[in-house]
Amino acid sequence: MDRSVFERRREKLRPLLRETGLAALLVTLDADRFYLSGFELHDAQINESSGCLLITADGRDTLCTDHRFAAAAARLWDKEDIFLYRNKGMPQVNALLKERVSGEIGFDPSALSVEAFELLGNGLRLRKAGDLVAELRVVKEDEEIRRLENSCRLNRELMDKLPGMARSGMTEACLAREIERYWRDRGAEELAFPSIVAVDGNAALPHAVPGPAEITDSCCLLVDAGCRLDGYCSDQTRTLWTGDNPDALFVSDLELVREAQERAIRGIRPGIAACEVYKLAAAFLAGKGRGDLFTHGLGHGIGLQTHEAPSLNANSEKVLQPGMVLTVEPGLYRQGRHGVRWEYMVLVTEDGARVL
Amino acid sequence: MDRSVFERRREKLRPLLRETGLAALLVTLDADRFYLSGFELHDAQINESSGCLLITADGRDTLCTDHRFAAAAARLWDKEDIFLYRNKGMPQVNALLKERVSGEIGFDPSALSVEAFELLGNGLRLRKAGDLVAELRVVKEDEEIRRLENSCRLNRELMDKLPGMARSGMTEACLAREIERYWRDRGAEELAFPSIVAVDGNAALPHAVPGPAEITDSCCLLVDAGCRLDGYCSDQTRTLWTGDNPDALFVSDLELVREAQERAIRGIRPGIAACEVYKLAAAFLAGKGRGDLFTHGLGHGIGLQTHEAPSLNANSEKVLQPGMVLTVEPGLYRQGRHGVRWEYMVLVTEDGARVL
Repeated sequence: MDRSVFERRREKLRPLLRETGLAALLVTLDADRFYLSGFELHDAQINESSGCLLITADGRDTLCTDHRFAAAAARLWDKEDIFLYRNKGMPQVNALLKERVSGEIGFDPSALSVEAFELLGNGLRLRKAGDLVAELRVVKEDEEIRRLENSCRLNRELMDKLPGMARSGMTEACLAREIERYWRDRGAEELAFPSIVAVDGNAALPHAVPGPAEITDSCCLLVDAGCRLDGYCSDQTRTLWTGDNPDALFVSDLELVREAQERAIRGIRPGIAACEVYKLAAAFLAGKGRGDLFTHGLGHGIGLQTHEAPSLNANSEKVLQPGMVLTVEPGLYRQGRHGVRWEYMVLVTEDGARVL
Repeated sequence: MDRSVFERRREKLRPLLRETGLAALLVTLDADRFYLSGFELHDAQINESSGCLLITADGRDTLCTDHRFAAAAARLWDKEDIFLYRNKGMPQVNALLKERVSGEIGFDPSALSVEAFELLGNGLRLRKAGDLVAELRVVKEDEEIRRLENSCRLNRELMDKLPGMARSGMTEACLAREIERYWRDRGAEELAFPSIVAVDGNAALPHAVPGPAEITDSCCLLVDAGCRLDGYCSDQTRTLWTGDNPDALFVSDLELVREAQERAIRGIRPGIAACEVYKLAAAFLAGKGRGDLFTHGLGHGIGLQTHEAPSLNANSEKVLQPGMVLTVEPGLYRQGRHGVRWEYMVLVTEDGARVL
């Protein structure tokens, strides 16, 4: 995307700052930083930031980073608005904030460490403003939807090939490796998250790590995986039975999961609360006597991050709007036996929903 | 590693807690958590923790996580000491802390968000204690050294093959892909960090992203890459000239870099301060009139994370001890022309240093 995309997003943020009485916003979450500047989607390491953005209500913005990233920054940002610091640089950014901003500075309390807060905020008025950028990101722009569609298409291509790829005797770990290779050979930058490939009882574990368990000629196989293509994540799940004689309880769980999913997707439209969508699936499964086997939320927003707002869970009051992209992924889990989950990505449209 | 390894590490931590007057330590950094429990080396997402550890001075420890990780936790931890929370769970962990601990609780201010701090610390006495686990991690145990050696050996195997792999006409991105494939085909879990593969002027950028630039039959090629094997990171750099007629300035920069590296490594021994090792390389390059072309620190500790303590930079007073594993990576950079860096991993021994 060219620079104007990021400039436009910052212009959309400015009135939100003014409305909330903030003179500026300090953007520290890597995905938020990328969304507003195109600069570095990933931090260098979990406890090593690649930089932060200072967005002001009156229009002069600064990209703060260290000299390692000077060239990357210069491709995206005017030189006079790049601030290069040494080491972790927080005292230097603090001095910059004092010079450039008078008034309250918003920050994201979920994406700023206590250490950074104290160094950055020293002598300044910082105020929590965690959701401002999330509010923008939650509704996808046309180009973002196009990229999410492409990422999901590449994902689906793989999911459609699963029955052929999953050979008897192959381990979960080996299939996980083939899935990653398939996507990366076709242009994906990386996995969106570590793939889940799980046989039989392993499929009942919500965080199953692909291991030495082998696919047999008659087993339950759950694959929950996603790729990142052109920056955007995909996330889908399929569950199948290898061989021609599926376990009857598996078949019945799978039918119910797919019907729960269909009911939830049919309910998605602008104006409905996220918890209501959750309830469409949860109530259906509960009505079939399997409510206690559905142990997680129904889905989540997806975009630059695999997990982003909104959550489709029992407590989320968030109201759906056109342009949101969500996963819908009900599941039923029987410890030691099998797990069944089916997951699509869904775009909220003007009058309903469209499966990507 | 079996559970006793992690138990032993926690036993080593307990006296440190008592010395500093802490009743407990709340461990939130993913690598620290893994080091002390074996539980989840990576968080689920940068703003989504997989859990935290409560280590007490008197010996009852608790692994806090959400239900997704219940099975993974149960493989590592006694059931009665696993605390499962719902959602982000911080108010629930706060209640647990109130119940289990009386006295001050240490935390790592660089690895706890402002939001988490407020929720976790509500009504409790939290005190900054960021370096306690790092103090343990900085000196590697025998098994860790063995794993670092294995990781470095696999790394070196690749580096030795580079001259043959780097074919004229191949892009930086393509070579980066082959490097990753080489390691993962041989058992590496992942890259330790995104590989740098950089031709000519790109090699002068400390954060060069492999792109469409092609290797030619007479160019500078810098490769800085590492893999993770059995949990442990490797990190090495080589710079070579393709073809038989290397640029004279390149040759001279490379000779100086390698001599600077050799001098630094010869200086490494228990008792020397990290900044003194840095100065051995920096002063040598400065004496050759190229001090301003050496623009970064000399190296860093490496282990479960690519970048960990200690830093070998101009300001680090940290004194080296046997069992530390460090990178030593001087470089010289000429914008628009070439960059030269050479990096080894070095173990501090009882009487000096050994290159891994």
